[in-house]
Amino acid sequence: MNDTIDKGVAFMDKEIAMLAEALEAKTIQRRRDLHKYPETGWTEYRTASLVIQELRALGYEVAVGKEVLQEESRMGVPEADVLAAHAKRAIEEGAAPDLVAQMEGGRTAVVGTLRFSRPGPVVALRFDMDCNDVAETAAAEHRPCQKGFSSIHPGLMHACGHDAHTSVGLGVAEILASLQEELAGTVKLIFQPAEEGTRGAKAIVDKGVVDDVQYMLGAHTGEAPAGSIACHVGHFLATSKFDAVFTGVPAHAGGAPECGKNAMMAAATAALNIQGISRHSQGASRVNVGVLTAGSGRNVIPGQALLKVETRGETSEIDDFVRTAAYRILQGAAQMYDIDVAITKAGGAASATNSPALSDRLERLGRRLGIFDNVVPSHALNGSEDFSYYMQRVQQKGGQAAFVIYGAAAAAPYHNSAFDIDEACLRKAMQFMASAAAELLREREKALLE
Amino acid sequence: MNDTIDKGVAFMDKEIAMLAEALEAKTIQRRRDLHKYPETGWTEYRTASLVIQELRALGYEVAVGKEVLQEESRMGVPEADVLAAHAKRAIEEGAAPDLVAQMEGGRTAVVGTLRFSRPGPVVALRFDMDCNDVAETAAAEHRPCQKGFSSIHPGLMHACGHDAHTSVGLGVAEILASLQEELAGTVKLIFQPAEEGTRGAKAIVDKGVVDDVQYMLGAHTGEAPAGSIACHVGHFLATSKFDAVFTGVPAHAGGAPECGKNAMMAAATAALNIQGISRHSQGASRVNVGVLTAGSGRNVIPGQALLKVETRGETSEIDDFVRTAAYRILQGAAQMYDIDVAITKAGGAASATNSPALSDRLERLGRRLGIFDNVVPSHALNGSEDFSYYMQRVQQKGGQAAFVIYGAAAAAPYHNSAFDIDEACLRKAMQFMASAAAELLREREKALLE
Amino acid sequence: MNDTIDKGVAFMDKEIAMLAEALEAKTIQRRRDLHKYPETGWTEYRTASLVIQELRALGYEVAVGKEVLQEESRMGVPEADVLAAHAKRAIEEGAAPDLVAQMEGGRTAVVGTLRFSRPGPVVALRFDMDCNDVAETAAAEHRPCQKGFSSIHPGLMHACGHDAHTSVGLGVAEILASLQEELAGTVKLIFQPAEEGTRGAKAIVDKGVVDDVQYMLGAHTGEAPAGSIACHVGHFLATSKFDAVFTGVPAHAGGAPECGKNAMMAAATAALNIQGISRHSQGASRVNVGVLTAGSGRNVIPGQALLKVETRGETSEIDDFVRTAAYRILQGAAQMYDIDVAITKAGGAASATNSPALSDRLERLGRRLGIFDNVVPSHALNGSEDFSYYMQRVQQKGGQAAFVIYGAAAAAPYHNSAFDIDEACLRKAMQFMASAAAELLREREKALLE
Amino acid sequence: MNDTIDKGVAFMDKEIAMLAEALEAKTIQRRRDLHKYPETGWTEYRTASLVIQELRALGYEVAVGKEVLQEESRMGVPEADVLAAHAKRAIEEGAAPDLVAQMEGGRTAVVGTLRFSRPGPVVALRFDMDCNDVAETAAAEHRPCQKGFSSIHPGLMHACGHDAHTSVGLGVAEILASLQEELAGTVKLIFQPAEEGTRGAKAIVDKGVVDDVQYMLGAHTGEAPAGSIACHVGHFLATSKFDAVFTGVPAHAGGAPECGKNAMMAAATAALNIQGISRHSQGASRVNVGVLTAGSGRNVIPGQALLKVETRGETSEIDDFVRTAAYRILQGAAQMYDIDVAITKAGGAASATNSPALSDRLERLGRRLGIFDNVVPSHALNGSEDFSYYMQRVQQKGGQAAFVIYGAAAAAPYHNSAFDIDEACLRKAMQFMASAAAELLREREKALLE
Repeated sequence: MNDTIDKGVAFMDKEIAMLAEALEAKTIQRRRDLHKYPETGWTEYRTASLVIQELRALGYEVAVGKEVLQEESRMGVPEADVLAAHAKRAIEEGAAPDLVAQMEGGRTAVVGTLRFSRPGPVVALRFDMDCNDVAETAAAEHRPCQKGFSSIHPGLMHACGHDAHTSVGLGVAEILASLQEELAGTVKLIFQPAEEGTRGAKAIVDKGVVDDVQYMLGAHTGEAPAGSIACHVGHFLATSKFDAVFTGVPAHAGGAPECGKNAMMAAATAALNIQGISRHSQGASRVNVGVLTAGSGRNVIPGQALLKVETRGETSEIDDFVRTAAYRILQGAAQMYDIDVAITKAGGAASATNSPALSDRLERLGRRLGIFDNVVPSHALNGSEDFSYYMQRVQQKGGQAAFVIYGAAAAAPYHNSAFDIDEACLRKAMQFMASAAAELLREREKALLE
Repeated sequence: MNDTIDKGVAFMDKEIAMLAEALEAKTIQRRRDLHKYPETGWTEYRTASLVIQELRALGYEVAVGKEVLQEESRMGVPEADVLAAHAKRAIEEGAAPDLVAQMEGGRTAVVGTLRFSRPGPVVALRFDMDCNDVAETAAAEHRPCQKGFSSIHPGLMHACGHDAHTSVGLGVAEILASLQEELAGTVKLIFQPAEEGTRGAKAIVDKGVVDDVQYMLGAHTGEAPAGSIACHVGHFLATSKFDAVFTGVPAHAGGAPECGKNAMMAAATAALNIQGISRHSQGASRVNVGVLTAGSGRNVIPGQALLKVETRGETSEIDDFVRTAAYRILQGAAQMYDIDVAITKAGGAASATNSPALSDRLERLGRRLGIFDNVVPSHALNGSEDFSYYMQRVQQKGGQAAFVIYGAAAAAPYHNSAFDIDEACLRKAMQFMASAAAELLREREKALLE
Repeated sequence: MNDTIDKGVAFMDKEIAMLAEALEAKTIQRRRDLHKYPETGWTEYRTASLVIQELRALGYEVAVGKEVLQEESRMGVPEADVLAAHAKRAIEEGAAPDLVAQMEGGRTAVVGTLRFSRPGPVVALRFDMDCNDVAETAAAEHRPCQKGFSSIHPGLMHACGHDAHTSVGLGVAEILASLQEELAGTVKLIFQPAEEGTRGAKAIVDKGVVDDVQYMLGAHTGEAPAGSIACHVGHFLATSKFDAVFTGVPAHAGGAPECGKNAMMAAATAALNIQGISRHSQGASRVNVGVLTAGSGRNVIPGQALLKVETRGETSEIDDFVRTAAYRILQGAAQMYDIDVAITKAGGAASATNSPALSDRLERLGRRLGIFDNVVPSHALNGSEDFSYYMQRVQQKGGQAAFVIYGAAAAAPYHNSAFDIDEACLRKAMQFMASAAAELLREREKALLE
Repeated sequence: MNDTIDKGVAFMDKEIAMLAEALEAKTIQRRRDLHKYPETGWTEYRTASLVIQELRALGYEVAVGKEVLQEESRMGVPEADVLAAHAKRAIEEGAAPDLVAQMEGGRTAVVGTLRFSRPGPVVALRFDMDCNDVAETAAAEHRPCQKGFSSIHPGLMHACGHDAHTSVGLGVAEILASLQEELAGTVKLIFQPAEEGTRGAKAIVDKGVVDDVQYMLGAHTGEAPAGSIACHVGHFLATSKFDAVFTGVPAHAGGAPECGKNAMMAAATAALNIQGISRHSQGASRVNVGVLTAGSGRNVIPGQALLKVETRGETSEIDDFVRTAAYRILQGAAQMYDIDVAITKAGGAASATNSPALSDRLERLGRRLGIFDNVVPSHALNGSEDFSYYMQRVQQKGGQAAFVIYGAAAAAPYHNSAFDIDEACLRKAMQFMASAAAELLREREKALLE
């Protein structure tokens, strides 16, 4: 792409700006609706139903559930009864029963595809839909309370901005559908479940959904004020998340302690030793036993224990080192007490970094659009995002991938009960993402012109 | 007492036998009613209301709640909202609202006193009323299911026979009231809450309820077949029960792990070291961390942890040694992580052993009555019972105390969801306890005669 | 045996008393010589050489080394170079080189047998010869210093009275040899190495040395004043002693910590968990990690670690329970760190208790001899003694065994650097042990007479 | 400085090259002498004596011992008897007794100062003298064995190249003394003890020795072939080294375990928790418990335990975080067992990085001299060097400091028993260091000329 803006580009930028402006009120409305009905990972039945209906109405081919999910790659899926209860609730709250049925069992992924008439690249955008397991504050000064759109689901809340992401995604879908005559190639809009806990992306990637993608885009709201954007994002930490259940033998602690096999001692030993896994000289690592519960009663030798663990690494190799050590510690602790341990994968993300060339293009776009007053030169994520799986796959296949952070002036820290965003970010994000996709979808055409 | 049975004794034995026979059906009925409506420690509102009404009807002076409980000695009292919910349920299930009000806030102790016209000793009997936190099996072969009296309270069950104890207690109350003309002195019937977790006795003893008692009797159903009885019971282990709550500082495990103060590591370290408290050369000891819960989420440095601990000792000194070591470990673990730990007493029992002279008398009685086919020479409890507090106090004041175990042919281990008793034990226990009390209450008279 | 003392008995008692008196000075002298040249377990070359020479001179058949040791049952044998150095030292200090050669490689057991002409029972006595790894005090008030017989071997000392035991044993040997005409049957005098750490008895028992024994006697000096004796000794704790060596991989702690496999973390984890092995409801148990050494340098991930562990149990079953748990913990800890652990048996003793009939006889003898002013009714050892292996074997074969404790008024606690005995105990012990053996060796004769 | 080489520079370079060539044989000889008589930290009596004599002969003012050491800042000084023994050995091996006396008690620092007649900057060079606690291999193929200069001190060896550093230092001293007419300002040659374990620099810096220094130079042999040099050295990790001694109460593990206060359990608990100290989000950290020894005997509750710990951080703040956490853990572990812990500082280094301007000058010099075939652009130390204390102080005072690594083709890894250097590096290092000092010492003159 040439930095000199050709007429087509100028025209397109302007058209998209107008479309985004026109969609702003509807997008805010949608975000508030999603905020009011938050759905946790793999239970986004109502959210996904809305997405499916909207995408179909706009003319997208829509693939759902098993069509876009590799079953065995799904991580941290809730129990069947929980899934069923949430599906029921979604229907009560307006989800279409047939669509919910199609997503039964926590298969809440949606991919909308639009093929333009002229040949061109395949561009994919990812939007995540799930909420957090956080109880929203009832404080009078909390804007969602004032405006009447705070969560009606106890213990659940959009405290990470995925309500914004999804509503922006639908706005982008509408803008791109309006530009059909002017674009080439194919666009795939991926509405992903279960990004929290990094549980959902792998199943979509493993299904091959992005195998043919040349350009992959993702975005997240950030803590900076609305009007800022960062296009060079790096330092996605690889992560592994897993649960370990020790099953020992309970016994009366007074009458026959020697008959017990103490699962708590195994768990406490494992926790201490996992915490002590060696640093790695090749880069940063992390390890955390976030939850430990053991035992059934004061006077019973604990027969059961659960640990929830996560590891991270600056590279996937470092994360592998830490995870492998943790698994071995769990197994050794079980052997110590002659008991069983079952380890279940609960989430994961790869290490990744933006493709520099694509970041450069996006940064130029960010400046060109004139809607961002602060184009941040670079941003180190220093956290984990399962968008990294898409990046990794697309980059391995020779494509380019980038993740951007757009300012949303969060009212409180992420995952906090008083979290809220400045809704002014929605139009900006919608306009930026649509412009970026449009530019990439006109690439071949431009190449011919030049 | 002389082994040669005088005529009065023979007559009394016979009269009590007849009364017990007459009361058998009613006692079985009561036990089933109590079994159906189990109430956990300090929430025995319905059970205690029935006891109060019954004792009053029989002519006993009845003292309730604060009158018989030293407030600050109560241990392991549930939260106020739990107490209120259980009080409400008790009223819905038939408890007299005014009586429930009298016991508000978990003050569910009842003491019925009958003063006979002639002077004589003070004899006390203890009956415990609370159930276990165990969910009763719904298995078709479980007799309470077949007969329709299994627990209707989810997660609660009489799996330790206290339903039998309380119904036997009411039967004994009726028998002794029928013998008013023939007895001397005073009888106190103590219906105690919260024996499970050894939480209730200390508050009654500290209030001075047994300070004037010369003979103290207690009893428990045992695993042997109905028809067996053990009168020489020893090896009550002293015990201490306490909770420890560590309060650290949570932090994001990926973004700022160094900002956390890890309460789980403190708790796991404490658990391992408490488990390793030294044996004692002067006698048996026990220690158990029965419950450990820590942390709020996989990716958060755990800011909170709870341990439920119990220690035991063959003597109170040994229990003190273990408990003191455990407290120090908890405090050291908190210091390690620069966090706070709050330790709360949750229960306790002293070490104790039956008064040999009283055990001998009871054993002779057991043989004399002709209703036991197996008089077991001795029984080591090897567990904890807060009846030990009564024993200790009465023995310290120069009186005698004894605890007997009567066979009840438990259908499954104690505290098991399929626990049940052979109801044939009820009449035998009622007859034995009433006969024992009657014999002791005629002591002075006999002394005069001899 | 009849309590009425027959003439033969009276005569024999008197004769032995005179012999003991005559031997007193020599026995004290011998004890001081042994005290000056203490030899630790399996290196008793000089001590055993003296014993061999003495026994041969008295007419005993003497079996040595491999003849009386089951090779593979020896535990805790020092390294070859240590053994060689001690053998060399023994020769320098007067041991006969040919005898030392016969005992090469730590085979320092000696059994002297005397067969009397008339048929009778086989009676065995055990005397232990090894010293402690304790440095003797140089304090002026310490009697061995004053009298010039304190240890000349740095770090080694008779601080457990085995110097007394061995010199008493030689006195008994001389007395019994003097009574050849009057005794029947066979006497075996077992001079055992390596009782400290309970390492030596098993190899002698496994060789079958006591398989034909009807009466087995052992003795130990006690803390009570000289003049007291206890013949009913019980509560020998079973014990297992073992070493564990973890072999990991060292690495530079700054440059490449992830390349290490941390043997210290495995060892520390094992130590904490071994300390926490459950109590046993069927009796007392003990567990101790007495020594832990790990690591080579501050800046090196520790590649090596050693633990020295001992377990005990009121019964051998309880000791088995604790030892098995400890082994499993060691193996689990090794697995945790992907390293090896090698466990080596270093000692052991069975649980045992005196044969009551034999204890009764010995107690009567103790009273009869008139040299003890305090016959203690019973003594609970509450420790471990590998004499238990002899007891167990003899009792299993239908014989009787007993261990007695004779007062020696220890000047300081056992195993203390200021330990010393009241040498007045030597004559009493010699007289008692010889009288007991003589009585048993005249049994058959007496039976014929009666 | 201008890259165009002025005539003076060219002349000086040539002169120094000739001097270095002339000194090569003597320098190799000295290095071999030092290699043969290695002295560990704070015992460099013989080495320092040679240095003092040499510097005095060359006309340097020499300050020794207390004159250049802040007493209380010395870390990890051996016990008095060890120091005395090494002083005695040094005299036996040729050290001047009066000089040894001056350095008594481990005060083995030497600073030689030469003041040139014209005014100019103060330039300091540091050379370290101590050896490692490593036993040198006796392998026939080891060059020091072949040439007869391998260590004659068992367990001690120059396995880190300090023998080279010191002999290079003496060569530099001689070269600079030869150039007196041509230089300005002042040069300080610091011969430092106890760099291993980073124990010696702080005491010299705290004494103020480098407070007036404008340019500070240090150097170390590296693994690369002789002929390579790196002038931009960074990533000196801050480090803290300390010992912790737990003092509990021993007790017989069988007879009275409850009387013990277990120092090993405290130590093992501390080790596990220290290993688990949290990572830091702001940079790399390290922690290692390198040595743990506890307990005195298998059957004794361990009354004593020792840990040797080191922490590191990419910044001094991170090292502080880890060390502070470790101290707290040690104290909490002591509290757990009601025992004492004494923590002693044993070494330390700051984080540091070369002054870029000085590194640039040195790199240009490296290229200019024509004796290095590989000028390495940058080198991350990723380890600790107490030269960082000098750097920090000089940089804080406004001066510049740099550390260079010159190739020495180590025959085996550092600290390995087969370590050796390619002695060809000696002349190159001597020439480079002298040229660098000379250039800096002519700076003011040049400034005047320009």
